[in-house]
Amino acid sequence: MNKLQQTINRIGQLPAAAAERAQARLDSLTKPPGSLGRLEEIARQLVAITGAERPSVRRKTIIVMAGDHGVTAEGVSAYPQAVTAQMVLNFLRGGAAINVLARHAGARLVVVDIGVNAEFPPATKPADTSGNVEFLRRKVAPGTRNFAREAAMTRDQAVAALTAGVEVAEAEIARGAELIATGDMGIGNTAASSAIVAAITGRPVAEVTGRGTGVNDAGLAKKIEVISSALELHGLTPDATRSTLDALDLLAKVGGLEIAGLAGVVLGAAAARRPVVLDGFISGAAALIAAGLAPGVTQFCFAAHRSVEAGHRVTLETLGLEPVLDLDLRLGEGTGAALVMHLIEAAAKFYNEMATFAEAGVTEKH
Amino acid sequence: MNKLQQTINRIGQLPAAAAERAQARLDSLTKPPGSLGRLEEIARQLVAITGAERPSVRRKTIIVMAGDHGVTAEGVSAYPQAVTAQMVLNFLRGGAAINVLARHAGARLVVVDIGVNAEFPPATKPADTSGNVEFLRRKVAPGTRNFAREAAMTRDQAVAALTAGVEVAEAEIARGAELIATGDMGIGNTAASSAIVAAITGRPVAEVTGRGTGVNDAGLAKKIEVISSALELHGLTPDATRSTLDALDLLAKVGGLEIAGLAGVVLGAAAARRPVVLDGFISGAAALIAAGLAPGVTQFCFAAHRSVEAGHRVTLETLGLEPVLDLDLRLGEGTGAALVMHLIEAAAKFYNEMATFAEAGVTEKH
Repeated sequence: MNKLQQTINRIGQLPAAAAERAQARLDSLTKPPGSLGRLEEIARQLVAITGAERPSVRRKTIIVMAGDHGVTAEGVSAYPQAVTAQMVLNFLRGGAAINVLARHAGARLVVVDIGVNAEFPPATKPADTSGNVEFLRRKVAPGTRNFAREAAMTRDQAVAALTAGVEVAEAEIARGAELIATGDMGIGNTAASSAIVAAITGRPVAEVTGRGTGVNDAGLAKKIEVISSALELHGLTPDATRSTLDALDLLAKVGGLEIAGLAGVVLGAAAARRPVVLDGFISGAAALIAAGLAPGVTQFCFAAHRSVEAGHRVTLETLGLEPVLDLDLRLGEGTGAALVMHLIEAAAKFYNEMATFAEAGVTEKH
Repeated sequence: MNKLQQTINRIGQLPAAAAERAQARLDSLTKPPGSLGRLEEIARQLVAITGAERPSVRRKTIIVMAGDHGVTAEGVSAYPQAVTAQMVLNFLRGGAAINVLARHAGARLVVVDIGVNAEFPPATKPADTSGNVEFLRRKVAPGTRNFAREAAMTRDQAVAALTAGVEVAEAEIARGAELIATGDMGIGNTAASSAIVAAITGRPVAEVTGRGTGVNDAGLAKKIEVISSALELHGLTPDATRSTLDALDLLAKVGGLEIAGLAGVVLGAAAARRPVVLDGFISGAAALIAAGLAPGVTQFCFAAHRSVEAGHRVTLETLGLEPVLDLDLRLGEGTGAALVMHLIEAAAKFYNEMATFAEAGVTEKH
């Protein structure tokens, strides 16, 4: 707990003065005040997060955590568990959506085996040897246990996975990362995320459970039943009147190793004052866990998009984050976050590079 | 009219077979079917527009048309008319928002004086001599006349400006442009655009008129009154029951030279089967004119974003286009379109570069 607690203790409040300073510069640039809308808000937040006069988010890393879920034994997913490991190999060969979008974003891609139920031989390495793709072996366990029957992890495993996430973020930041994005891979992880979201928000399971990678109506009904029973088993039945909840306990009981790892990434980035782009539903559930451990952490976060997955809307509302995109995405892997990195970089660049009215000799508003 | 009519005649229908072929490939890629949402729609449209097996939109050009408006004499804008020319010089020095965002998008920026009320000395050239910024002199007139009192242009001037737009698009395509974006600069041009939108959609002027660069309440009331009276003067009072309207006549009476130029760009790109990204409200008004001249043209268009400006929503509905972004932008210059070029390129890239299930050895859905 030591490393994790130290990280949590380092997460501070954003200085109000920085946002005010940023506003003054925004209003001096050659455009009608406020006319770049959300991009101006993002610029203000970047200045506040980084504390820099001219924030740079040029050096970007997408961290994809991969883990398996024992609850797949209940038949809650449209794809078999083996797909998690197959997709990790696809990431390393460069053929997945996140590979294409990471290249397009100019971002490094770090793929972390934090809990895949397969042994990757020592020769398993990224095909891309330029350093743009990295494979990290941080396996805490070969998947979680079936949370429909027992706790998904021990508390120690949850702490180990959170700490691994913190350390991966720290290593990327030490390497120069200025903007971090989260991504996930794990067959069954929408079930774990829905369980987390229902328990934290108090909303009915049926309201926050979706089709994931594409279960049919019968599969969806089954998934809702499995999650509802599991929450009851663990004493976590959604209750809108519950005022506090032990986020670590919740994570251990119904979470996932990759969800824990991503929560750790969010905490590690925030402690180092680096902005974090949250991908979709799984990353949102991870952020809820991170915010349960350190409430101030959401100030360092951007929500990339509003996923089609049921439950993501209430997740974002609970986090207090407004998504940047709304493109009916539901792939995960960090794909939405990768797309949004370009827009966040655009915000930093216009803020840093535009001429002021005085510099350009442009007449100001009447 | 010859060149313009030839261009209009060349605009065809998108082949249904291309979209079906694209769908088959989309469903073979290593992701749950449909999970990239709007990005999949964009990929299908790119295949249909270009007719290419693997559409490329790497070579990008943003065309910014600049023109002045006689109607500014009525006090309908928050900035003086001189700002149009000042901003053109800002574009050429590289200090405006569109400069930053064009560089960020990796796009060429072509700034066209199609009707600025100022003479730019022969020495007026872009500071960026790399060829990434170009200045074109295609002045049809030094601004429009005051449409509150007389027609903004003659029909011949409108045709000349439309034709100039077609020719600028053609020149960029000949140079290799695979994706074209539209942008505008012209103090007073939201008034002209609102007049066009009201006349075409039949909606009340007050409903489609906004604050532009930022007029106050009194300024907004004045602007609505000026536009309403002008539409009455020209026999164009909004009428939801009117079935047809001569788009060229409307453009000449209450439009703008840059609006005509942008309509020409849209027509020229569509005739050459190049996708066009429409920026905000002014570009939307230009697209309404283009669609009035050639109804099939919207199939070649992407709407970049939903502007804050009142009237843009109904403009997009009338065009049948769903915007990609909704970020409270209202700057113009092509800034929203520049941001979206990255997302459209992302769609082409994932479609072209992802591995299929067969190639990656990933198990398909149950």
